[in-house]
Amino acid sequence: MDYRNESPAKVRSLIRMGEITSPTAGMCAGFAQANLVILPKELAYDFLLFAQRNPKACPVLEVLDLGERAVKYLAKDGDIAMDIPKYRVYEYGELTGEYTDIVKFWKPDFVSFLIGCSFSFEEELLEANIPVRHIEEHCNVPMYLTNIQCERAGMFSGNMVVSMRPIPYRDVPKAVSVTAAMPKVHGAPIHIGCPEVIGIKDINRPDFGDRVTIKEGEVPVFWACGVTPQAALMASKPAFAITHAPGHMFITDIKNVDLKF
Amino acid sequence: MDYRNESPAKVRSLIRMGEITSPTAGMCAGFAQANLVILPKELAYDFLLFAQRNPKACPVLEVLDLGERAVKYLAKDGDIAMDIPKYRVYEYGELTGEYTDIVKFWKPDFVSFLIGCSFSFEEELLEANIPVRHIEEHCNVPMYLTNIQCERAGMFSGNMVVSMRPIPYRDVPKAVSVTAAMPKVHGAPIHIGCPEVIGIKDINRPDFGDRVTIKEGEVPVFWACGVTPQAALMASKPAFAITHAPGHMFITDIKNVDLKF
Repeated sequence: MDYRNESPAKVRSLIRMGEITSPTAGMCAGFAQANLVILPKELAYDFLLFAQRNPKACPVLEVLDLGERAVKYLAKDGDIAMDIPKYRVYEYGELTGEYTDIVKFWKPDFVSFLIGCSFSFEEELLEANIPVRHIEEHCNVPMYLTNIQCERAGMFSGNMVVSMRPIPYRDVPKAVSVTAAMPKVHGAPIHIGCPEVIGIKDINRPDFGDRVTIKEGEVPVFWACGVTPQAALMASKPAFAITHAPGHMFITDIKNVDLKF
Repeated sequence: MDYRNESPAKVRSLIRMGEITSPTAGMCAGFAQANLVILPKELAYDFLLFAQRNPKACPVLEVLDLGERAVKYLAKDGDIAMDIPKYRVYEYGELTGEYTDIVKFWKPDFVSFLIGCSFSFEEELLEANIPVRHIEEHCNVPMYLTNIQCERAGMFSGNMVVSMRPIPYRDVPKAVSVTAAMPKVHGAPIHIGCPEVIGIKDINRPDFGDRVTIKEGEVPVFWACGVTPQAALMASKPAFAITHAPGHMFITDIKNVDLKF
């Protein structure tokens, strides 16, 4: 079943009913998808400040009100406790389980953060005739933990996670321009060319996701990645946190193109 | 004395010694200036969320750590309790005094927010040969309280305040492009042309600042304004808050041009 041309509302309802539990890449073409972090209120200020200080890795698109499950700005009738195909629960920085909904965990002191996702700019890259290798190779984008320290905020710290796309050298300036125009979904690359200067020892062994082919004449280009907040959670070890499972995103009613403004 | 070509560090030190107590417009050409809001920690989350939900009016450039007076990212050796020429103290939404430093009020639970200022984009407009009327007429920019409701966040709500610059009609697209490129200092206009649709009854009677001449062939263009958080403070009436006095800004070490990235 291909959900490419379905509406976000329809796909969210299928996810809510448990009929979709797979990754959301390629669903609802043209609409933005979002990363999720849920924390208890006592940690919400530190996390929001962490995002403010690390906007390329953590571009916050919406913060739900205290205890609120209903999404307000990014989607109509979205339920943040049910509308993601797969969630992860972390306790003291350890992944303790994956679930298709988190209703049984819900507490009135939860605050939910929805964060921009690179799926949005990949569609713009394709539109600009720039190849996106992991889409061509039907796998997950390669991601790496770097030596770039995020700016600390309260209890949250950690190193930046980046995603990598090999770009034909003559398309690199175009790829920079296209993504720079979308700061709400990670914006311009944070590094171009030399994996070792940002602490990546072997480009063929990503820390998350899959290895992709780098062809002759292509340059590895690195963007700040929405997995960074998950790495910060693992490093900072709050007592309890919930995130989406990688690749299993919240599908919004917002067009990617609207994230340019 | 003209401080146009002085360094930010030098001018901040003169302000700190009490030798400058005047508005900062025109000082340290090329360097960004910032609005200030200081609140006790218990209100900091609500305010940071208010800024996240109203980014055009409240583009946060830096949040200092709890109780910290030393500015970290925007300036070297900046003291937020002394380096602004004039501060305002608000109690329960009422202005209760203006001071040239706030050392005697300082408490360990204060959190300071520095917010982008339109001085930065005015320099870019002039560079693009677009006239900035209140600079030509040596007065303050006209500002208006609109009927545009800000998105509420916890205790903070209020209507948006806008600044207005009359732009020759053929330069309006250029003015939009130039400012859209600077989202950290209010970005693109929020309205062009019809004051009445955003609740402005008399363009010649601004709610803050001064009236300026609108010449034939010019269109009034409205940008979200950094006075919005002060209006929200007045509307939301927290027990205690400190801001800069209008026009008396914090001068940063960051070039305006760097706010494009």
